[in-house]
Amino acid sequence: MASVLPEFKFFRISMPAEYVAHVEINRPDKLNAFHDPMWHEMRAVFNYLSFNPGVRCVLISGAGPRAFTAGLDVRSAAISGPIQAQAADPSRKANSLRHHILEFQSCVSAVSSCQKPVIALMHGYAYGLAIDIGTACDIRLCAKSTRFCVKEVDIGVAADVGTLSRLPKVMGGLTSWVKEVCLSAREFDAEEAYRVGFVSKVLPTKEDVVREGVEIATMIASKSPVAVQGTKNVLDATKGRTVEDNLSYTAVWNSAMLQSSDVERAMRAGLKKRTPTFEKL
Amino acid sequence: MASVLPEFKFFRISMPAEYVAHVEINRPDKLNAFHDPMWHEMRAVFNYLSFNPGVRCVLISGAGPRAFTAGLDVRSAAISGPIQAQAADPSRKANSLRHHILEFQSCVSAVSSCQKPVIALMHGYAYGLAIDIGTACDIRLCAKSTRFCVKEVDIGVAADVGTLSRLPKVMGGLTSWVKEVCLSAREFDAEEAYRVGFVSKVLPTKEDVVREGVEIATMIASKSPVAVQGTKNVLDATKGRTVEDNLSYTAVWNSAMLQSSDVERAMRAGLKKRTPTFEKL
Amino acid sequence: MASVLPEFKFFRISMPAEYVAHVEINRPDKLNAFHDPMWHEMRAVFNYLSFNPGVRCVLISGAGPRAFTAGLDVRSAAISGPIQAQAADPSRKANSLRHHILEFQSCVSAVSSCQKPVIALMHGYAYGLAIDIGTACDIRLCAKSTRFCVKEVDIGVAADVGTLSRLPKVMGGLTSWVKEVCLSAREFDAEEAYRVGFVSKVLPTKEDVVREGVEIATMIASKSPVAVQGTKNVLDATKGRTVEDNLSYTAVWNSAMLQSSDVERAMRAGLKKRTPTFEKL
Amino acid sequence: MASVLPEFKFFRISMPAEYVAHVEINRPDKLNAFHDPMWHEMRAVFNYLSFNPGVRCVLISGAGPRAFTAGLDVRSAAISGPIQAQAADPSRKANSLRHHILEFQSCVSAVSSCQKPVIALMHGYAYGLAIDIGTACDIRLCAKSTRFCVKEVDIGVAADVGTLSRLPKVMGGLTSWVKEVCLSAREFDAEEAYRVGFVSKVLPTKEDVVREGVEIATMIASKSPVAVQGTKNVLDATKGRTVEDNLSYTAVWNSAMLQSSDVERAMRAGLKKRTPTFEKL
Amino acid sequence: MASVLPEFKFFRISMPAEYVAHVEINRPDKLNAFHDPMWHEMRAVFNYLSFNPGVRCVLISGAGPRAFTAGLDVRSAAISGPIQAQAADPSRKANSLRHHILEFQSCVSAVSSCQKPVIALMHGYAYGLAIDIGTACDIRLCAKSTRFCVKEVDIGVAADVGTLSRLPKVMGGLTSWVKEVCLSAREFDAEEAYRVGFVSKVLPTKEDVVREGVEIATMIASKSPVAVQGTKNVLDATKGRTVEDNLSYTAVWNSAMLQSSDVERAMRAGLKKRTPTFEKL
Amino acid sequence: MASVLPEFKFFRISMPAEYVAHVEINRPDKLNAFHDPMWHEMRAVFNYLSFNPGVRCVLISGAGPRAFTAGLDVRSAAISGPIQAQAADPSRKANSLRHHILEFQSCVSAVSSCQKPVIALMHGYAYGLAIDIGTACDIRLCAKSTRFCVKEVDIGVAADVGTLSRLPKVMGGLTSWVKEVCLSAREFDAEEAYRVGFVSKVLPTKEDVVREGVEIATMIASKSPVAVQGTKNVLDATKGRTVEDNLSYTAVWNSAMLQSSDVERAMRAGLKKRTPTFEKL
Repeated sequence: MASVLPEFKFFRISMPAEYVAHVEINRPDKLNAFHDPMWHEMRAVFNYLSFNPGVRCVLISGAGPRAFTAGLDVRSAAISGPIQAQAADPSRKANSLRHHILEFQSCVSAVSSCQKPVIALMHGYAYGLAIDIGTACDIRLCAKSTRFCVKEVDIGVAADVGTLSRLPKVMGGLTSWVKEVCLSAREFDAEEAYRVGFVSKVLPTKEDVVREGVEIATMIASKSPVAVQGTKNVLDATKGRTVEDNLSYTAVWNSAMLQSSDVERAMRAGLKKRTPTFEKL
Repeated sequence: MASVLPEFKFFRISMPAEYVAHVEINRPDKLNAFHDPMWHEMRAVFNYLSFNPGVRCVLISGAGPRAFTAGLDVRSAAISGPIQAQAADPSRKANSLRHHILEFQSCVSAVSSCQKPVIALMHGYAYGLAIDIGTACDIRLCAKSTRFCVKEVDIGVAADVGTLSRLPKVMGGLTSWVKEVCLSAREFDAEEAYRVGFVSKVLPTKEDVVREGVEIATMIASKSPVAVQGTKNVLDATKGRTVEDNLSYTAVWNSAMLQSSDVERAMRAGLKKRTPTFEKL
Repeated sequence: MASVLPEFKFFRISMPAEYVAHVEINRPDKLNAFHDPMWHEMRAVFNYLSFNPGVRCVLISGAGPRAFTAGLDVRSAAISGPIQAQAADPSRKANSLRHHILEFQSCVSAVSSCQKPVIALMHGYAYGLAIDIGTACDIRLCAKSTRFCVKEVDIGVAADVGTLSRLPKVMGGLTSWVKEVCLSAREFDAEEAYRVGFVSKVLPTKEDVVREGVEIATMIASKSPVAVQGTKNVLDATKGRTVEDNLSYTAVWNSAMLQSSDVERAMRAGLKKRTPTFEKL
Repeated sequence: MASVLPEFKFFRISMPAEYVAHVEINRPDKLNAFHDPMWHEMRAVFNYLSFNPGVRCVLISGAGPRAFTAGLDVRSAAISGPIQAQAADPSRKANSLRHHILEFQSCVSAVSSCQKPVIALMHGYAYGLAIDIGTACDIRLCAKSTRFCVKEVDIGVAADVGTLSRLPKVMGGLTSWVKEVCLSAREFDAEEAYRVGFVSKVLPTKEDVVREGVEIATMIASKSPVAVQGTKNVLDATKGRTVEDNLSYTAVWNSAMLQSSDVERAMRAGLKKRTPTFEKL
Repeated sequence: MASVLPEFKFFRISMPAEYVAHVEINRPDKLNAFHDPMWHEMRAVFNYLSFNPGVRCVLISGAGPRAFTAGLDVRSAAISGPIQAQAADPSRKANSLRHHILEFQSCVSAVSSCQKPVIALMHGYAYGLAIDIGTACDIRLCAKSTRFCVKEVDIGVAADVGTLSRLPKVMGGLTSWVKEVCLSAREFDAEEAYRVGFVSKVLPTKEDVVREGVEIATMIASKSPVAVQGTKNVLDATKGRTVEDNLSYTAVWNSAMLQSSDVERAMRAGLKKRTPTFEKL
Repeated sequence: MASVLPEFKFFRISMPAEYVAHVEINRPDKLNAFHDPMWHEMRAVFNYLSFNPGVRCVLISGAGPRAFTAGLDVRSAAISGPIQAQAADPSRKANSLRHHILEFQSCVSAVSSCQKPVIALMHGYAYGLAIDIGTACDIRLCAKSTRFCVKEVDIGVAADVGTLSRLPKVMGGLTSWVKEVCLSAREFDAEEAYRVGFVSKVLPTKEDVVREGVEIATMIASKSPVAVQGTKNVLDATKGRTVEDNLSYTAVWNSAMLQSSDVERAMRAGLKKRTPTFEKL
């Protein structure tokens, strides 16, 4: 990573460990709620990290003690959002809404298409958009205090920037639980999130979550970046496809990737019981 | 809902709460086992509810204390079913069997394609067809007493009216558990059903299950029907498709649905801390 | 099964119960690690069992007290594997690597395409290839001692003979847990494997696992082979496909399979409370 | 076919040859334009023929000298169609429009899902809905006089009851020609329709088209109905699927269908140079 | 369109008719061959046109008398392209090549994802990249002089920015002709292009092609933009999907789009035999 | 190719030009009709050629003056084929038939999965199986005398070893023509085959076809084998998939394949106007 990190207005990036970037959603006085300029900035942040060879694993958390994010800044959306915009007729309004949704989705998808693994570190309020972002991450950890909610039906809409598309994939299908929380907008807590597998670990405090996140990220960052990014790419390609298609895609992918110098370095280090180091990717 | 509910022979419909319909499989003296006319009636019931603007959430349970349903009425099927029918040769018999299966499947699919969320309230025997129906529902609750069984291999057939197609979707894949219960026809109880995620809640008695079902249904029915039905439709469309396809489908869906008056009602009510009401859909 | 079982060099086949075959990976002095000739032999073993009418259910375990399999024999691969092979340029090397991977994948896929249910009985080390083989099985049981690991990123590669394609299917999606264990190569134990659903049962010792495996296999083998093999085929066909496609495939499949004599035998035996027997398939 | 054919109001059915049914769209004074009751009747007609064992091939043409069909009866739709219906807001109107479109599509799909081959015999005006129906047929013939038009953009809508979904399939993709005629609503004549492959034959007059249609239908009806209906089913299943999926579906289909007595009859007749006859299906 | 058109370095945009934009690839002294900055500019051009409400149909042609485009500027690519770039090992080089290809593909895909119909007007050399761009257009016309070639195998590569993915879709499958021209890199002329359906019209000179293009574009631009853009969107969504999926997508799309004021305007104008005008979209 | 070609009983292989193999179906006294041992031999032939680095393009024709192949040797099949085999019940017979079909299909698929382009040179009778084999080839040429027929419905079966799966792909969909020839089993001649695009060239005599085939094959064999085999692989991967999926697959494929030395050789030779030569693959 360049010695000087770029500056963003609503996101803070730091490097808590070698090759590990930590992104903080940084609007704590508003419970990290998102308004329009934040989407676009989030996309810029993750595109930057995706292509930065100095980064091998990414953490995302919410600044301040109270929230990962409380979701969409409804008050701001209520004043100037695309739902209020005028249009000549409902078809023209639909056209403009569709473009707005696609644009918004693409900002969230920047998280999921980041080539490096992204770990969500969740605490406090994790409402609405928090689930969209969380499901776009690869791994999810949370603090005991976290209060999750697929909030959208409460404001009269079906979630549309990723939750409904990704939650069934990360939860493994249309389980009774997925349907219930999406249809009822009821809150669920950290323990329930762990039990159903939405998060893979619950830790006492936000600080513990960050510490654990840095630890996992450091471990991942110590592995061959060719292997790690290939694993993420190939796993993501399985969604909605057959085993046969995926085996064939994996074979093509690895036909290039097995020519990495990392394999020899890893094997040699393994035999000598040393820790290997790998070239940037 | 029209003041007068239609009458069915093997199903009883009541309205335990506003916008909430409760369907009871009503052949308790035969453990609610299904014979031929019941399929077709079940389809009629769910088509009726799907298009009735007075209904926003549906419950389905089995009448009587002993069973959700014990499954296919094997004795009845053994006498006059399509398996017994004569045909000129095995290809012609296959043709008639295939049509019978497709017809039968379409009756069960009427549950899953009902536009309103459907909650299965299970107790006692929940064998064979009970799993076909249960997996066609969105949410599953059960009483402690429930005895589940994917019964089909015990009568020499691979389940064919929905279980094998839907169980992997609602359980999130071909887990070790899915394979085991389908291949062995062994019984599993409420606790196991909860642990693996087949049901999202276990309650002491059938009465508790119904009470809890009505509560969840009432909560769902209090939300915007545009948002709720959209959430169900979009979630169901994810099955077997890629995230990219689903994001694009969601954007098209919401381009019309965000023009609902419910959004403004919900937001305004939210700001005033009141409960919103919504127009019929 | 023919009275004389064929002999293999690295696999031992026995018949612990009627219609039940038990395959042991048999290189215990090397922790059952796989080198080149073993893949091809494994394919031969499972093709043989797939078409043998005397077999209705298959068990696979590792010989000796220490391992199901420790995975790829890295030392052997380091000397003579395709990664070491010379080629005129990276594209030609990619071509030869791709063929090698496809060949290797097809050996593992022989387990998954075996027409009879296959149950993995895991204990001790279950690293790397152990997961490829385990996910190709239908049901997984393990001993308390088992130490699982998706080991590949540790040797600088993305897993490519089945784990990344099948683990999301058998675990129900790209859960936080699947991503974490694949990206970090960290070990997980029997208890964790059970909690997340990778195995459906944990037993105290290897011997207990084998005993339980034989029991489940015996139960499955006692059912109609037409029903059991149809159930496996139809369940496997659901992966990555829509519910609609699967219902239609099931209807075609059963149009022939419901003409089995097993149905009548099973029904008649059921009415008489006797155990039915079925013709070979 | 039963000695007495059922009567329909807007469709006339006759039997010009053994096993051959001829359906005429019968509203010639209005150029066979469709209004609401006609959809539902068309569905009833084709469902009836699909399951009638006395029918092995179906012809569809327009009554009178002037049109196959001029399409939607716009004047009728302008008065009472769903586009005119009132609704509380655009999302509720969208909901009712979507149901109307799905219903309408299902009427046209009854043509394409008829199990027997359907041959469109086109002449005169073949506008709008004529293309929806034509593409739902298996084979298309036309008279020299035919004037085709994908008319929808001229009335401000994207075609929605089948043309846009089926034309790319029956024309083999999104050719320059498909795009042009759909985007511009320009007319094309019989010669052009033949050159691009939309019809497989052009004949001088409507009478010639009917004569040729009866001839082809008679030939098809003389073949094994098991083989003919299987061929249609398996060909239709290829649309939008991979070769691998289709080969496997075909194998399952034929596992039952090759047990037909028709094979032996056909072979025996072939050796004896006689014409075989086949049992009803 | 804004009174002032934006300026681009290698592309010239003009407005030959109302709502019709004409894009010229403008490097005639190099036969309009593409070097690196041109891709990115082409993407900018088409993104601009896609969202400009003053544009309803787009034409693309090559400036000068000699070429649509001769393809990739090989000499320029040979000096500084990604193929020459150094990398630590073949896997790292593969990684950088893959990103370069995806970036390059996305520039060409900007043509195909432009919401307005795009018509390719081809003449002279139309080699390599010309086919990538041509297949990304909706309609293709050409001059008699055009010399087409899927050139890639001649420079040792499989075409990778769109031809191999789109040619089978626009030609309707893997016809003998598609395979032959892609595998042999042989030239084909205008007459052959017309016979196989690659272009829908051949005209004597480049000037005639442009005149015809403007005429078709003007006709398309005179229709309802809601209908035209919906038709393009829905047709494109059919590629690689089933008829069932497409019918359902179309129904959702039109649930909003049928609420356009264009329908009424078009119908009213039709009854009065006047030309309707439509609001901007 | 090794100096000594392997010998087969029913197929003759020769090398008419460098890197070009010519396979002749060699049972001319029976019109090259296929009986059981021939399938398996055909698979062996094409697997051998697929992996032989001395072969870059393959031709297949029928020996003798009368037929490419008259199809299945019905008389031989009538005596000992799987249709005659006894089984305990129709489900068991279906099981054995399905395996037989899958085995038979895999023999034909060996033609289509051969990594080198395969050109069918057809003449005389080209019935039934001739179409299965022809559609498994990449390019099809024929002599004026050729008489084609999708013969299967004439013997009471739906074609099941490839025609119904591949004809829609190579003809670009379910055109009126595809449906007609498959449903009626009517013969079509060389001119019709050319007009609809089934073959890409018609030549006066069998000798001319072979000469032309050798010429095209020689041209293809002179190109970079990395580019040619990649082109075939990537084109074949498009079938039944979306453009997006295919673009991404192509990018992965080429990330390795662009590292070929062939690119530089081809470019350098191009600049010097010389013919490049390429390393074996």
